[in-house]
Amino acid sequence: MKLNRMYSFLKADIDEIEKELEVAIESESLLLQEASLHLLQAGGKRIRPVFVLLSAKFGQYDINIVKNVAVALELMHMASLVHDDVIDDAELRRGKPTIKAQWDNRIAMYTGDYIFARALEYMTSIKVPEAHQILSHTLVELCKGEIAQIEDKYRFDQNLRNYLLRIKRKTALLIAVSCQLGAISSGAPEEIHRRLYRFGYNVGMSFQITDDILDLTASEEELGKPAGSDLWQGNITLPILYAMENPDLKSKIERVTEYTTPDEMKEVISSILATDAIDRSHELSRRYLDRALKDLEHLPYNRVKKSLKNIANYIGKRKY
Amino acid sequence: MKLNRMYSFLKADIDEIEKELEVAIESESLLLQEASLHLLQAGGKRIRPVFVLLSAKFGQYDINIVKNVAVALELMHMASLVHDDVIDDAELRRGKPTIKAQWDNRIAMYTGDYIFARALEYMTSIKVPEAHQILSHTLVELCKGEIAQIEDKYRFDQNLRNYLLRIKRKTALLIAVSCQLGAISSGAPEEIHRRLYRFGYNVGMSFQITDDILDLTASEEELGKPAGSDLWQGNITLPILYAMENPDLKSKIERVTEYTTPDEMKEVISSILATDAIDRSHELSRRYLDRALKDLEHLPYNRVKKSLKNIANYIGKRKY
Repeated sequence: MKLNRMYSFLKADIDEIEKELEVAIESESLLLQEASLHLLQAGGKRIRPVFVLLSAKFGQYDINIVKNVAVALELMHMASLVHDDVIDDAELRRGKPTIKAQWDNRIAMYTGDYIFARALEYMTSIKVPEAHQILSHTLVELCKGEIAQIEDKYRFDQNLRNYLLRIKRKTALLIAVSCQLGAISSGAPEEIHRRLYRFGYNVGMSFQITDDILDLTASEEELGKPAGSDLWQGNITLPILYAMENPDLKSKIERVTEYTTPDEMKEVISSILATDAIDRSHELSRRYLDRALKDLEHLPYNRVKKSLKNIANYIGKRKY
Repeated sequence: MKLNRMYSFLKADIDEIEKELEVAIESESLLLQEASLHLLQAGGKRIRPVFVLLSAKFGQYDINIVKNVAVALELMHMASLVHDDVIDDAELRRGKPTIKAQWDNRIAMYTGDYIFARALEYMTSIKVPEAHQILSHTLVELCKGEIAQIEDKYRFDQNLRNYLLRIKRKTALLIAVSCQLGAISSGAPEEIHRRLYRFGYNVGMSFQITDDILDLTASEEELGKPAGSDLWQGNITLPILYAMENPDLKSKIERVTEYTTPDEMKEVISSILATDAIDRSHELSRRYLDRALKDLEHLPYNRVKKSLKNIANYIGKRKY
């Protein structure tokens, strides 16, 4: 099933959010407008807005209120991608040149800042103080995750705990909070918004592990960037950590730098694929996914629950 | 009179804020901690916290509430400085290497993001929705100002309007909002917090124009960076705009690039100083200062008003 078929009853609302995203990044500065639009049109799954809307269905759903949270969270995600590409020195995202590649690092930095400030503007329409506290804590954690990613680059002696904390901060928390804030902004009870937070966290962990697997197993066409980009940039992901349990492979992997040639990288990747690293990574991703599905069991029965279940399954098992 | 003598009755509270700033930037990441502390210890006048506290005196002053606003606004100012130094490729700030010089642009970007996220955390303790709306609008404007500064670099055909809008966005608004939010967070009536906003805006404009004058007239020791840095970086400030009204001087100024040598720059600066550009700039700064002082007349009489007046005069007329 295609992703957007899983929440077809939300189509009109999702379309409205897509339009609002374009309004949000409008700017009298041509440079800013172009850079932001470039990012927006590169697409993306809009997972966070979808989770915001679905979670809001557990309370008094009002698209005019919840829309602002959905737009804010997608904008924050976009802003973090722009800054992320600066850190990773990434040339391509979703098959298109990154802002830092098409313009430069400084433009990318301020485009990110601008999109982020616009996100905050949207959030101010939500009058529940708790929502803002949750979000600001998440943002602090997100930054810590980004800094950790810089500090941990090419640090081949890191452990599973480092990795899990990093992806929690970098990915899972914002998805968790998308679910939670959707529910809070529609006045859903605490028990439900906490449960949705857990669900989002577990889906987010599963999602990121799958992403890290695909970086090694998918083709350049599917990824929109060269395979093995993570390792090239020094990001030590789960499959790489597992593969390094083999001492010979470890010393091979430790020799990777940003100057490793594409042919050398292909060789390293096939050595990793020859181990059980991918299978074990899938297993851990699956475990988070199972937990997410279990979290859903505790929620009231409605058609939304089915959508969340389908999306979670899709995200945890997607091929690219 | 020294600046901190103008609000000596606030000394205990200012000390508390200084301590809180150190707490705010604590981080388990050594890198983040060092970079932020480096910035904090470089000092600064802490003008924004002082304005927050003084303005709060027009309402029900509670240091435990208003402290959070003061810390948040100083942190936001610090975060914007870090990103600003990336844009300007600045090596020195207040006589110390910038974060981007001592570490690199990427660390500077995330240190800024982190400090900013921490600022948001402090702000969430304020439960007045209006305060958050005002702040988020200001942040959007601040980003527009930063982007305009990039777009306008070495654009010698810009006019006074471009310049005034840029310094409004880059400097004056955050000072205006420091005053306004101090008042709002202590429950001061609308008439007063709007007046304090106007006061802060006018002081901020006067402050930035004075800053731009000093960049040409003060010594390298006083500035903590080479004189003429603005022009070197392509930032066309008020005295430069005035000086370019002379066609011969204009063509000389237009030849400035980042590769201009220190000797050549000295020559350009003395040509500018030989015109009435500095006097006219002082005149405009003075006009904003007068407006600020006029704004104060409409406020209730208390000792705070005298402090604000002294600080405004100090800021508008300071020598470095």
